[in-house]
Amino acid sequence: MTPSETVLSALAAQAIELPSWAFGNSGTRFKVFGQPGTARTPYEKVADAATVHRYTGLAPRVSLHVPWDRVDDYAALSAHAADEGVAIGAVNSNLFQDDDYRLGSLTHPDPLVRRKAIAHHAECVEVMRATGSTDLKLWLPDGTNYAGQDDIRARQDRLAESLSEIYALLDPHMRLLLEYKFFEPYFYATDVPDWGTSLLHCLALGDRAHVVLDTGHHAPNTNIEFIVVQLLRAGRLGAFDFNSRNYADDDLIVGAADPFQLFRIMNEIVGNGALTGAGVNFMLDQCHNIEPKIQGQIRSVLNVQEATARALLVDRAALRRAQTAGDVLGAHQVLVDAYATDVRPLLAEFREARGLAADPFAAYRASGHDQHLAATRVGGEQASWGA
Amino acid sequence: MTPSETVLSALAAQAIELPSWAFGNSGTRFKVFGQPGTARTPYEKVADAATVHRYTGLAPRVSLHVPWDRVDDYAALSAHAADEGVAIGAVNSNLFQDDDYRLGSLTHPDPLVRRKAIAHHAECVEVMRATGSTDLKLWLPDGTNYAGQDDIRARQDRLAESLSEIYALLDPHMRLLLEYKFFEPYFYATDVPDWGTSLLHCLALGDRAHVVLDTGHHAPNTNIEFIVVQLLRAGRLGAFDFNSRNYADDDLIVGAADPFQLFRIMNEIVGNGALTGAGVNFMLDQCHNIEPKIQGQIRSVLNVQEATARALLVDRAALRRAQTAGDVLGAHQVLVDAYATDVRPLLAEFREARGLAADPFAAYRASGHDQHLAATRVGGEQASWGA
Amino acid sequence: MTPSETVLSALAAQAIELPSWAFGNSGTRFKVFGQPGTARTPYEKVADAATVHRYTGLAPRVSLHVPWDRVDDYAALSAHAADEGVAIGAVNSNLFQDDDYRLGSLTHPDPLVRRKAIAHHAECVEVMRATGSTDLKLWLPDGTNYAGQDDIRARQDRLAESLSEIYALLDPHMRLLLEYKFFEPYFYATDVPDWGTSLLHCLALGDRAHVVLDTGHHAPNTNIEFIVVQLLRAGRLGAFDFNSRNYADDDLIVGAADPFQLFRIMNEIVGNGALTGAGVNFMLDQCHNIEPKIQGQIRSVLNVQEATARALLVDRAALRRAQTAGDVLGAHQVLVDAYATDVRPLLAEFREARGLAADPFAAYRASGHDQHLAATRVGGEQASWGA
Amino acid sequence: MTPSETVLSALAAQAIELPSWAFGNSGTRFKVFGQPGTARTPYEKVADAATVHRYTGLAPRVSLHVPWDRVDDYAALSAHAADEGVAIGAVNSNLFQDDDYRLGSLTHPDPLVRRKAIAHHAECVEVMRATGSTDLKLWLPDGTNYAGQDDIRARQDRLAESLSEIYALLDPHMRLLLEYKFFEPYFYATDVPDWGTSLLHCLALGDRAHVVLDTGHHAPNTNIEFIVVQLLRAGRLGAFDFNSRNYADDDLIVGAADPFQLFRIMNEIVGNGALTGAGVNFMLDQCHNIEPKIQGQIRSVLNVQEATARALLVDRAALRRAQTAGDVLGAHQVLVDAYATDVRPLLAEFREARGLAADPFAAYRASGHDQHLAATRVGGEQASWGA
Repeated sequence: MTPSETVLSALAAQAIELPSWAFGNSGTRFKVFGQPGTARTPYEKVADAATVHRYTGLAPRVSLHVPWDRVDDYAALSAHAADEGVAIGAVNSNLFQDDDYRLGSLTHPDPLVRRKAIAHHAECVEVMRATGSTDLKLWLPDGTNYAGQDDIRARQDRLAESLSEIYALLDPHMRLLLEYKFFEPYFYATDVPDWGTSLLHCLALGDRAHVVLDTGHHAPNTNIEFIVVQLLRAGRLGAFDFNSRNYADDDLIVGAADPFQLFRIMNEIVGNGALTGAGVNFMLDQCHNIEPKIQGQIRSVLNVQEATARALLVDRAALRRAQTAGDVLGAHQVLVDAYATDVRPLLAEFREARGLAADPFAAYRASGHDQHLAATRVGGEQASWGA
Repeated sequence: MTPSETVLSALAAQAIELPSWAFGNSGTRFKVFGQPGTARTPYEKVADAATVHRYTGLAPRVSLHVPWDRVDDYAALSAHAADEGVAIGAVNSNLFQDDDYRLGSLTHPDPLVRRKAIAHHAECVEVMRATGSTDLKLWLPDGTNYAGQDDIRARQDRLAESLSEIYALLDPHMRLLLEYKFFEPYFYATDVPDWGTSLLHCLALGDRAHVVLDTGHHAPNTNIEFIVVQLLRAGRLGAFDFNSRNYADDDLIVGAADPFQLFRIMNEIVGNGALTGAGVNFMLDQCHNIEPKIQGQIRSVLNVQEATARALLVDRAALRRAQTAGDVLGAHQVLVDAYATDVRPLLAEFREARGLAADPFAAYRASGHDQHLAATRVGGEQASWGA
Repeated sequence: MTPSETVLSALAAQAIELPSWAFGNSGTRFKVFGQPGTARTPYEKVADAATVHRYTGLAPRVSLHVPWDRVDDYAALSAHAADEGVAIGAVNSNLFQDDDYRLGSLTHPDPLVRRKAIAHHAECVEVMRATGSTDLKLWLPDGTNYAGQDDIRARQDRLAESLSEIYALLDPHMRLLLEYKFFEPYFYATDVPDWGTSLLHCLALGDRAHVVLDTGHHAPNTNIEFIVVQLLRAGRLGAFDFNSRNYADDDLIVGAADPFQLFRIMNEIVGNGALTGAGVNFMLDQCHNIEPKIQGQIRSVLNVQEATARALLVDRAALRRAQTAGDVLGAHQVLVDAYATDVRPLLAEFREARGLAADPFAAYRASGHDQHLAATRVGGEQASWGA
Repeated sequence: MTPSETVLSALAAQAIELPSWAFGNSGTRFKVFGQPGTARTPYEKVADAATVHRYTGLAPRVSLHVPWDRVDDYAALSAHAADEGVAIGAVNSNLFQDDDYRLGSLTHPDPLVRRKAIAHHAECVEVMRATGSTDLKLWLPDGTNYAGQDDIRARQDRLAESLSEIYALLDPHMRLLLEYKFFEPYFYATDVPDWGTSLLHCLALGDRAHVVLDTGHHAPNTNIEFIVVQLLRAGRLGAFDFNSRNYADDDLIVGAADPFQLFRIMNEIVGNGALTGAGVNFMLDQCHNIEPKIQGQIRSVLNVQEATARALLVDRAALRRAQTAGDVLGAHQVLVDAYATDVRPLLAEFREARGLAADPFAAYRASGHDQHLAATRVGGEQASWGA
């Protein structure tokens, strides 16, 4: 393949998984602003995800969330997805919405609460079997608000035990993906606050436990691409939750806050051969509190695609030469040259060759689909982040 | 007065204002955990605030929030407060819960939305007149999520205009208190993100506009006591919103995360003669997501009292001598010595002399009042942060 | 003018001032790595600055630092600069290198030390007169390391007094530029830590006192373009010190860490009409600890130029339309579209039309000038950040 | 033993190791302020460390730094230490001061530079053998300043290889202690930036490789006691480098910035049985840029002792009861009650019983020893952080 063919072939293989909850209402603790046309059921959420894929060709899967996406017949949901042209991806468990989880779920001092939280994953595994999903994704919101509130060490021990029970529920082809988060919804000590903690638990569990890196879940100033490399080196980068942030876990559109960071992340993915075939599930996890949701998801996957295209354009031979020569600015400039490239023409051509609009974002906005949904999705209750 | 009499007299004059919303439900964007016995009406919230005052002697006022504390008859609410032994303090407006405020309130591009947001303050001023409140407190949640979403400069200009209209609504004895916040509920550019912005608007408004310093509303690593000094020096420190934080605007119990910081803040207050008579309204603004609410408020005012007692014990003559001599560690040690003092015996004696329990927190916990409320406040809907 | 002519005309007017100290050795507290060919005298530093200008056409002035750039005959230095094609810009005072300043300079408890620090500025003003400089730039490193070490309020009062004496030294056409910095070289309370403090002092001084915004001098997560707007709105943005950072005051090449941030800053400059004629002095303040210094400065001014070009390409009418319509993603996309533009071809053409190399960075690297300097600047002592 | 005897016995067993470099000059990149009486040789540094021990009874060991503490006869230095009443502790290597290390040491692209850096540790091991030291402490300053400057993954691989060669140099009773640091002296990607990275390398090396936790080496807002627990749980907490910080790696006196944090750390140490016998070496690593150095070290070890005493006073049975009962505020209060205790009387008694001054800090300041050193240590060159 010519270099350009390599780029196009890599782009053609790229897949980004969408979260069903991006299509329901979401907001801050202060306010959830409803939007007309917002999906009301798991079926409508899947349909919206499929719309994103139809316009972009980038989003062939949609993650479910239990209980938010509970339906009577998961096979029917799965078939609906297939009809729409997408597949069910990871199944996400929920450990933060039950009243029993006020002081923790898998780490709770009370074994009955832990048992309940573990049992919830049995349901998730059933959903996985019914939908063909292979990734059980687990974000542990557990933590404490005050020093002394609970024993940090004991909580780790309980967590290890709970996780091993959940791991045992998996079928042999299934993976457990464990997400870490610096803080929130608790504000003193988070039980899985960093990649080190998540990785230690994954190593203890076994080969099919992998770490989820959510780009919004780090301390200020953290170098995220370094963590990407560490997890790839350890063979345990299971998935990304893409989004972007300026302050905390802001859940903004990926690439909107710091596009150079997204480029650097994708550069490590490409440079370490992990764009495809390395077991990394590239997922979005975002809110669209004030912007239209389908537009927001389209913009997001396009941002990841643009960053990827730039990363694919890095002249790796020149980069290595400059690095080996200790040419600090020369090596940096090789990266920057790729980043400065306007990849929109290349991508427009690539898309049109695949029967897509040259600018899917503009095309969707011009399509009237948002207006159509607002006019037709009348009555019922809009799906929400919390329901 | 002996030094000890000075301390006791200062403690006797100390007053901390409680927020009515601390007694309703609150939570994170992920979950609001209800608690039995939580207040259901403004009347019950005022009663709970009065309970805190009854146990501590520290909390003679309660702030209202409009519309959360809307009642038909504010004079009746005021009389109820007086019956319970407390008074109505500041009135807080709400600029974040109306659907129209999705893109801003006082800064909104649409003049009709700005007009609505301004008009809301006319209602607040009516509540102030009816309740005898003199402080209109205004937290501006406005901001944007994405670069380019709106014009930063134009928003400042609109804000200045809106504020001047609100300021004109005030009676001559009333003050406008303008709070700043680093971020949230928007995550790119906040319209009043720092003390400098708030102060500039206050200076433009007039003598009765003052800055509110919320201890949880700063960038990481910010030296808050420095800002206290700056605002005192400018004569514009109108109020504190006390709480504590480890990460973002965590709204934990004041003094729980960093008691030395609270001490340093109170040390500047005491050292600059601002504990009483300087126009500083010491208020709490906290959530109690997982802990009992009345207990949480009692613990909070006691923490402020303990920090104040320590600050009052600083040997200011020795401090000045060491500072003048350039004795770095000697001067630091004068502060640390006061901080290391166990003020609990002094405060126990002080409280008992005033007819209070030596340990109000323990006394309240032993009183059975939480259980009584849980048993009697049955039915109805618990008041919530958002309602 | 056509839109394109407007862009080119704005670019032609752009000027960035270089710091003389960028051409001497610099480093961290751990190590200063020397580089062959580094300038040894103020004359050589000016020559290096002129080299940057020769290649880029962007850097017609060089800032001096007293005492680092002390010479016997400033008129001769000025003439040397003119011969090389550049002019002397701002004069920077130094308040951190004298042993007397261990506990402060303009804020020191001892009036004799303050007097000495004030007097140092009289020398700076003499240098300004001799070189035709109009900007006296003052970074106050003063601060304390321990709570209690000195009185925060008293230090502000002393600072105000010292500054007013310095301001009085200025000729009527001269400006005082006051820089703020979040922390370092002291680590508890910095005496001018934020834009609010700097602005308050400038307002107290008079019309010719302006704030310096160093892009590396903020708390984590601070929105710098917001501050740019605030200072422009107050008419007090005197200068930038450009550099970039990932952690603290890293002093990396401007635009290297977050090019989108640099673009957003320049977008506010352009959008608020402050690129030229608004009294904003665009200066670099950077270290080049491990990279070649002249190359580092060339890369830096080119980065500012590229960010400016992108900002000039923003479709402001479309931006305003989308903002007014409340089209969150549409407005954001207008900015992003300009940012995504590859401005290198435009700038190459622009440069060639002005007789410059299309790629000044590559041209300089290919010129052998670094090697020439290394071969000819033999003996003597390399100028250092600290000397 | 009675509870009180347990406390006293634990205090009697406590040992804190002092860094030799705390007794030489130190400063920031802006200025090193010399102090009269500062040690000029390794012998004088050891003598100063012994003075700290003589006054406090807490500091029986002193860490060496190679090459800063190079002497001709290490046995003589060791004997000198013994004469003074202290022993040689850890030996620290230096990977940041050689010109060859501009782009890295153990991670450098050039194998010759790596070889040199590895060989330096052979010298350190010789010093260990000669002085009886068992801990080789290694802080890796390596990192990059610009994205693309070097390959992050390749640097990890080279580091792993270099460390394994160093590990192989150790005698069977020796340990390798690997420190991590968030950033500085490089500002884009640090090669060992967090506990996760350090731990992964230690796990790969073998049982005698342990992590060093420097309390100043974390991202803003990081919960350090959580990391303490994680490393204890993994059996790999080899040592502390104690100091305190408000912003970056400020290297202030431990406990000066946030005494409650120091208490929480010591509380986890005590609660997890790691105060003695668990292989944790409690060391200081601080600068005293503006305060007297021996006083600074005395204050530091006393701060650690006071925090430890408070941690020993925690009512662990009550704590566990409250935690098990889910009593959030009750459990927190158990900690806070211990923290609020004024341990100075207890410690004064404890010290006097051991023949020490009740207040070693005051006693030292009154002793005239600083003045004596200033008068007698005349001529020669003061030892410096960098020499």
